[in-house]
This record gives sequence, structure tokens and C-alpha cells, in this order.
Amino acid sequence: MKQTKISEAVVRRLPIYLQVLNELDSREIQTVSSQELGVKLDLNPAQIRKDLAYFGEFGRKGIGYDVVYLIEIIRQILKVNQTIKVALVGAGNLGHALCNYNKYSKDNMKITAVFDDHPAKIGTNINNLVVQPMSELVATIAEQKIRIGIITVPAFEAQNVVNQFVSAGIEGILNFAPAILRVPDEVRIHNADFTRELLSLAYYLNHEGEDSDETAMD
Amino acid sequence: MKQTKISEAVVRRLPIYLQVLNELDSREIQTVSSQELGVKLDLNPAQIRKDLAYFGEFGRKGIGYDVVYLIEIIRQILKVNQTIKVALVGAGNLGHALCNYNKYSKDNMKITAVFDDHPAKIGTNINNLVVQPMSELVATIAEQKIRIGIITVPAFEAQNVVNQFVSAGIEGILNFAPAILRVPDEVRIHNADFTRELLSLAYYLNHEGEDSDETAMD
Repeated sequence: MKQTKISEAVVRRLPIYLQVLNELDSREIQTVSSQELGVKLDLNPAQIRKDLAYFGEFGRKGIGYDVVYLIEIIRQILKVNQTIKVALVGAGNLGHALCNYNKYSKDNMKITAVFDDHPAKIGTNINNLVVQPMSELVATIAEQKIRIGIITVPAFEAQNVVNQFVSAGIEGILNFAPAILRVPDEVRIHNADFTRELLSLAYYLNHEGEDSDETAMD
Repeated sequence: MKQTKISEAVVRRLPIYLQVLNELDSREIQTVSSQELGVKLDLNPAQIRKDLAYFGEFGRKGIGYDVVYLIEIIRQILKVNQTIKVALVGAGNLGHALCNYNKYSKDNMKITAVFDDHPAKIGTNINNLVVQPMSELVATIAEQKIRIGIITVPAFEAQNVVNQFVSAGIEGILNFAPAILRVPDEVRIHNADFTRELLSLAYYLNHEGEDSDETAMD
């Protein structure tokens, strides 16, 4: 599919559209209007129409969007209409949680290899994946044609893992470590550091501060 | 501190500034220029100066920002110069990972209560916190003056937890469940659903698709 360059903000909204559309589809709802999507997502319907118009004119006035068709289009744009293999480094609690979640996920991004360098973890099983030592990372990534890497190691180990992912030819990295990491221009890194989310949430707390005042914010 | 309204994009960058500044401080670096911050964060120095100018003029031309002072200012703006108590619902792998991380965190947001309704989990320990049943949620939140809630339960249970948080007077929610949740206007919700990050990352993969082509993206 030919595409014009899409802004990062739109790319970040597409998975949210996909989530809502999948939910509608599971309830066998066949069409949805931009108004209905707007209410569900707390977004302006005009913004939604504008976002989706990047990909062609497939909403019909007075009828709305065909749910199944829109799912297919967004999956194509996000390239998750094909299987995308993912490697995870860091077999701790967070690594377990992600593998476990991924097992039940309906999308085509699958964690297919898990690595950790702690002797107690190597050889253990996480959802039918055997935890491999880091020395096998490059070969396994090449063999399985893995394209995305997830980092769930402590902050001080994270840059080292990034460097190994980069040498292995990984194209995109999802980093959970609370660290600022450097990657070459051709590799994309997204940060999913929950402490950042928590800190930005704190900003929106009531200004009163000391006690949990129950009046609403203005 | 008096503040003008700050855009959400700026609020979301503040925790990242804080992370870099803490790292500089730990290496005993006393001043930093917007150029240096720009390189570290892959942001335009002009953007950084503009962001920080919201909070007053404290950068000095040719010298830069005082690291310790800037940390203090950002902590004030984010309100993390005071202790903020956090409740977590969902004592699974992800809940464990977050509690564990939080234990070592230097900031003042502390998970002080953990809830789960699965009989096998109630009464168990996570980092010195006893997992409590959901029936104790409202009373504990009031007693401890907890202001923020974290959700790490499966998607189908998440809205129910949101509703209980809202009745308990929680002001901000960090949601890890892959679900679109409804909150009243006076409650703020941030989503940390990793599947969204993974999906938006897929968009940036090489267009070739089928095999892990090693040429760089344009």
C-alpha cells in the first residue's frame, strides 16, 4: 500500500482505534460513526475523520465506518497483518508478565525468544519458551528473522542490551528500563518506562496537596 | 507555586528531563546547557528552552541550567517534592514487577497498598506489603490518603477496578490493562498498555516486510 508520511501522533492513535474496533467486532457491531468512536476514545470526531482520511476515503456519510474493513486497513498500515517476531531480554517479573500477556494476544506480534544472562534463569521455561543465554542472541535473531526487541532488564544493563540488539539487526526496540538509551538513526526506540507515566500523572493531581481533598479539579 | 496552564506534551517531557538531570546529578555534574540536554534527549535545544521557560527564567546564557535547582523546580511542578501514595490492584507478575521497581525508586511516589481478589493471593507478601482483598480498598485508600491507583488486572476486570477507585476518591489512574476505560471528568487516567507501544513500533519497521532486510530505513 502506498502511504504518505503519517505524523507520529496519528501512528500512536492507530493502536487505540484498533483496540476499540476489535472490541466492537467481538460484539458483532458492523459499523461505527466517528461520533461513536469519539465518545469511546474521548477524542474529537473531526480529529478521528482526519486521522482516518490519511488512508483513503472509506467512511460513508450517515453510515460510518465498516468495522471489519477498518480493522484490516489499520492492521495493514501498522504491518501487523503479517507475523512480526519479537525477542525479549530480561526474564524477571516484568518479562514474565509480557510473555504471558502476549500468549493470549490476538495480534500477530509474538515473543518467540527470551534471553537472560543470570545462570538461575537460563534454561527455565516461560510460556513454552526456554530462556536462552545472551551469547545466543545474535544467532537466534538471525535464524528466526526477529525484527523487534523488548528490554526488561534493570536500567544499568539496558544500554548493553540495546547495543547487542543493534548488532543483531533489530529494527525496533521497546524499552521498559528507566534509562535514556542511545540507538543509531536507523533503529527506532519507544520507551514504556512506567515511572514517567506516574510522574506526569502526579502533575494533574489537585493542587491542595497534603490531604486527599475530595472536591473536583477545575 | 503559581503556574500557567502547561500543555500535555510539556508535562509528558518533564519526567524525561528529570530522569536525565538525576543521572547528571548522580555523576556530580553541576550545570547543563540546552544543547547538551538536546543531544541526550534527541530534542531541539530551542524546544527545551521553551519548555523550561514556562516555569521562569533560570537558565543562564553561556552557563546553562543549574542541575540541582532544575531538579527541584521540576519536582515541585510535578508535585513529587511531597510524598504521593499509590495503590495497586492486581498482584500478578506485572504487579510484582512494579512494586519491586518502586521499592528502589528515588522519587516520592510510593506504592503503599496492594489489592487482589484471588483467594490464593490475599495475605501473601509483596515487598513487605500484604495483599489485601478488594473489600478493604475504600477504607484503606481513605485511611492512607492514597491519591493514585495503578491497575494491573486483566482487561475484563479493569473497568470494575476503575469504578472502585473512583468511589474511593482516587484522583489519577495508571492503567496497564489493554482496555478502553471510562472515568468521570475529574479523574485523570493514563494508559501504559504495552501492546499499543508495540503496535505503533511496528509501523516504523522496514517496508520490505517478509524478511529482516538489513538495509537502513530512509
